[in-house]
Amino acid sequence: MALLVNPWSMKVIKVILLSYIISNLFVQSANSAKTRHLKWKVEYLHWSPDGVESVVMGINGQFPGPTIRARAGDTINIELTNKLPTEGVVIHWHGIRQIGTPWADGTASISQCAINPGETFVYNFKVDKAGTYFYHGHYGMQRSAGLYGSLIVDVAEGEREIIHYNGAFDILLTDWWHKASHEQEVDLSSNPMRWIGEPQFNCSLAAQYSNSTENPCTLRGGEQYAPEILHVLPNKTYRLRIASSTALASLNLAIGNHKMVVVEADGNYVQPFTVDNLDIYSGESYSVLFTTNQDPSKNYWISVNVRGRKPQTPPALALLHYPNTHISTLPTSAPPVAPRWDDYDVSKSFTKKLLGLVGPTNPQPPPTSDRRIILLNTQNFIDGYTRWSINNVSLVLPSTPYLGAIKYGLNGAFDQNPPPDRYNYTYDVTVPAANQNSAYGSGVYNLTFGTTVDVVLQNANAIKANVSEIHPWHLHGHDFWVLGYGEGKFDEETDVAKFNLRDPPLKNTAVVYPFGWTALRFVTDNPGVWAFHCHIEPHLHMGMGVIFAEGVDRVGRIPVEAMACGLTGKMLMNSNVRH
Amino acid sequence: MALLVNPWSMKVIKVILLSYIISNLFVQSANSAKTRHLKWKVEYLHWSPDGVESVVMGINGQFPGPTIRARAGDTINIELTNKLPTEGVVIHWHGIRQIGTPWADGTASISQCAINPGETFVYNFKVDKAGTYFYHGHYGMQRSAGLYGSLIVDVAEGEREIIHYNGAFDILLTDWWHKASHEQEVDLSSNPMRWIGEPQFNCSLAAQYSNSTENPCTLRGGEQYAPEILHVLPNKTYRLRIASSTALASLNLAIGNHKMVVVEADGNYVQPFTVDNLDIYSGESYSVLFTTNQDPSKNYWISVNVRGRKPQTPPALALLHYPNTHISTLPTSAPPVAPRWDDYDVSKSFTKKLLGLVGPTNPQPPPTSDRRIILLNTQNFIDGYTRWSINNVSLVLPSTPYLGAIKYGLNGAFDQNPPPDRYNYTYDVTVPAANQNSAYGSGVYNLTFGTTVDVVLQNANAIKANVSEIHPWHLHGHDFWVLGYGEGKFDEETDVAKFNLRDPPLKNTAVVYPFGWTALRFVTDNPGVWAFHCHIEPHLHMGMGVIFAEGVDRVGRIPVEAMACGLTGKMLMNSNVRH
Repeated sequence: MALLVNPWSMKVIKVILLSYIISNLFVQSANSAKTRHLKWKVEYLHWSPDGVESVVMGINGQFPGPTIRARAGDTINIELTNKLPTEGVVIHWHGIRQIGTPWADGTASISQCAINPGETFVYNFKVDKAGTYFYHGHYGMQRSAGLYGSLIVDVAEGEREIIHYNGAFDILLTDWWHKASHEQEVDLSSNPMRWIGEPQFNCSLAAQYSNSTENPCTLRGGEQYAPEILHVLPNKTYRLRIASSTALASLNLAIGNHKMVVVEADGNYVQPFTVDNLDIYSGESYSVLFTTNQDPSKNYWISVNVRGRKPQTPPALALLHYPNTHISTLPTSAPPVAPRWDDYDVSKSFTKKLLGLVGPTNPQPPPTSDRRIILLNTQNFIDGYTRWSINNVSLVLPSTPYLGAIKYGLNGAFDQNPPPDRYNYTYDVTVPAANQNSAYGSGVYNLTFGTTVDVVLQNANAIKANVSEIHPWHLHGHDFWVLGYGEGKFDEETDVAKFNLRDPPLKNTAVVYPFGWTALRFVTDNPGVWAFHCHIEPHLHMGMGVIFAEGVDRVGRIPVEAMACGLTGKMLMNSNVRH
Repeated sequence: MALLVNPWSMKVIKVILLSYIISNLFVQSANSAKTRHLKWKVEYLHWSPDGVESVVMGINGQFPGPTIRARAGDTINIELTNKLPTEGVVIHWHGIRQIGTPWADGTASISQCAINPGETFVYNFKVDKAGTYFYHGHYGMQRSAGLYGSLIVDVAEGEREIIHYNGAFDILLTDWWHKASHEQEVDLSSNPMRWIGEPQFNCSLAAQYSNSTENPCTLRGGEQYAPEILHVLPNKTYRLRIASSTALASLNLAIGNHKMVVVEADGNYVQPFTVDNLDIYSGESYSVLFTTNQDPSKNYWISVNVRGRKPQTPPALALLHYPNTHISTLPTSAPPVAPRWDDYDVSKSFTKKLLGLVGPTNPQPPPTSDRRIILLNTQNFIDGYTRWSINNVSLVLPSTPYLGAIKYGLNGAFDQNPPPDRYNYTYDVTVPAANQNSAYGSGVYNLTFGTTVDVVLQNANAIKANVSEIHPWHLHGHDFWVLGYGEGKFDEETDVAKFNLRDPPLKNTAVVYPFGWTALRFVTDNPGVWAFHCHIEPHLHMGMGVIFAEGVDRVGRIPVEAMACGLTGKMLMNSNVRH
């Protein structure tokens, strides 16, 4: 529970908000400049995301960080200064493919060295495609520390947006823990592992709808955790842009009494379809259209619920406010209820409705692939430490960035043996592994430039019997076509034939369901080194990712300041020592 | 309160220990090798220093870090690997002068770049002088995070120790907060500043002696916070080496019923004198001798109390155990009581008893100095932020290490204007400043090589009326002679004449008392860049230090890996870019 200032009357009323945050980041687009210069300082701030004061990683005194708003074709130029006392930092521009600028992808150990405290690094990259994106930290678990914000790319100046609407809102969803991300890192890396658990703080007005007896929080007005209010006019159509930067939670969003039409996913248009509620996994983004055709004398809840893990909190709430009523008038009905957290059929049904709007920016995939990599997702032990592994390799990031190590031919920087393309097909994905041991690795999948690659994510039972978790996998540097989802073990003989090659959606993040598989296809047309990983922050921290390298010999001159660490730093300094 | 395992009976008895830790680090010296190779990994660990589990910065799975034991003339070679997820790290070898190896002093921004996560840096330096030292983190507030350990240098093989004793113990004193040092940093850097406060956790057996009603902690045996026990035989003389790595606290140590003879301070012999209790400030070290001439059928408390700030905890306790009684037999009398925390006369009396044992390793100071720098210590505001300033400059460390910046002539790395040698003598040190504003600065005192420099620390009233705090100042790269202490404002006309030039003690840390001054002298015979700063961790974090540079043109080849950051990194890479 929380209070909220009524901006007109300054009366204080009771509204929502809890450990899940909905930040309304609506900004009017007006600027038509081609290069957007920004100066950012990353720093720690005292903040109360959910009513309890914590330390968050903010930008320019703000949490979440400032929204970037640009037009397709613009160049973003951000001078990022690290004002953290002892930590390095990087920022990843999630969904931006970084064509020609792989060193600007903002992934520590992969595309660049972390920016040292006190130093400034310039991210300079083109946003080539309109869409709903976001940005976030990609070093240790700094995303969990609160380092994120929205990145909205409108269609190029003079171009026509094919979606029509009267107004727009931007929403960034996230989850929050009271234990500092530093401590979460230590907990996850301990033997025995200590799991971060679900967000549990019950400071939500929605508590009243869930028979909760826990202490409601008090709002006096103007709080940092005050819920967002979307002010609408009647009988208009609005675009709601939604991105999820959660560390853990899969979410479901619904607007009381209002249908939504899904029109965009991960920066690509999809064939429109109507839903009552929308599933969104960490790393995904959507645009939906909704029409304000309901009783304008009422307000309506926007409700966000947890999916895929048993929730420990009531839903996060925001308010859809019509002008014919006071902002303090709470909706008369309870917030919309999501499907049961473990009703995966609903989720799968939603996911399968996502189809690409085939056209110039959404081409059909090549009909065949040159290589198929099948990635078995398993939870393992290594020397007693709990890890996630892919084909029995648990990723450990090296201290030298792959991009420089490969470009400069420094073989000592990471494991030279590539990880396997297949797993042992006698593996039974329906039960815990007979041998739960795995191995650390830092090897790279070397993809031939200009080829078509299929990646099949194969889920399996985790360490505990009858448990298989949801994993939203995110690919850097590319969009991929989602060719299909299936149950059980992927069968190359039969499942390939069922791939949707006609109108698969283009995405950068796709979920693999418990005990199931997901098949993706992409073309290796973007020279660089690209992470492909589960977007659940603790899972990545525990090794759940792989590295793809493609056409690195075609990568242009890497700014030396991106490589001033590890073996690349040593190499760059080596023949130029001053005495 | 806490429990403790009796190593013989495995019975559990109640003993001491609280927020002040006494770690017994006694190790037999035997090795006569000349180079001591060590491999250390700095990592976060779950630990319970005082009965409450926290995350500490440890080394090789230990907290405090391993004790280094060497002989004078040995070379210490430590391969230090940073296993922290996102933070850089350095280690300072407190009291070791680093003659000829100024890049091994372990001070981030001064002698080297912080070691990046995943990388290894080799500290290679000579321990040229026997004595009691310690080591600790010197980046951000990583000392407060628990990064410290003992460094004991015995006399060279074949040389005679001029102090005679039958056995020895090493003790490292520190203080501990439950709020993580990361959050302390944010608190101290906030506007308004949030002070870290005194350690307050009351988990000490000593609570029973102080009418405390707070909950006593339970010990089941084998706890990480179990108090130290010093096992002695009757009628022997023991050397007790004591170093203080406290973040904040000034301490006083006493052994029930036993007198102590002070014989060493900061790695230098002093004229022996007998005390009932010993003051020790953060950054100091002492050796005392005590003789086990008391009733051998009893055990005795070793008690550590807070000085100079009103304590919020009962004393920390350890046990002196005689063999004729069971280890579980608690002393019959209460722990020795320290002088009142604000009885500065006792402290000053103790400090003035410290006199150098003049001889080959303890020469007399040069009779005159070539330069005198008078440093006014003030507490200030800068744009609303609370800071400490020296001659109205509040130190902000740059991202490029001074040592490289000066050696390579990179002028843009720090303020080129040196800070002033004097303050405005109309300043009234007895009341809060009329103008409490100050300015940030990163300038350097350039000291002419081979000259004699006097530094006078001038204390003053802090922001609040009638408050002047204790500051223990520590000099890197040197020992200094402590020529005198005085009350009020230092007067060059009259006070210089009273300097003790006959037998001043050689130290590396000296306290300046409230509203008083302290005069030091040293010879600029060690090429390098050296920090001189208040050893109270939050005070240094808030700007309380200065930088001395001397003979940097004489510094040998700096290992490039020490300079791979900031402008030195850029310069070293600049003419060697690979495409």
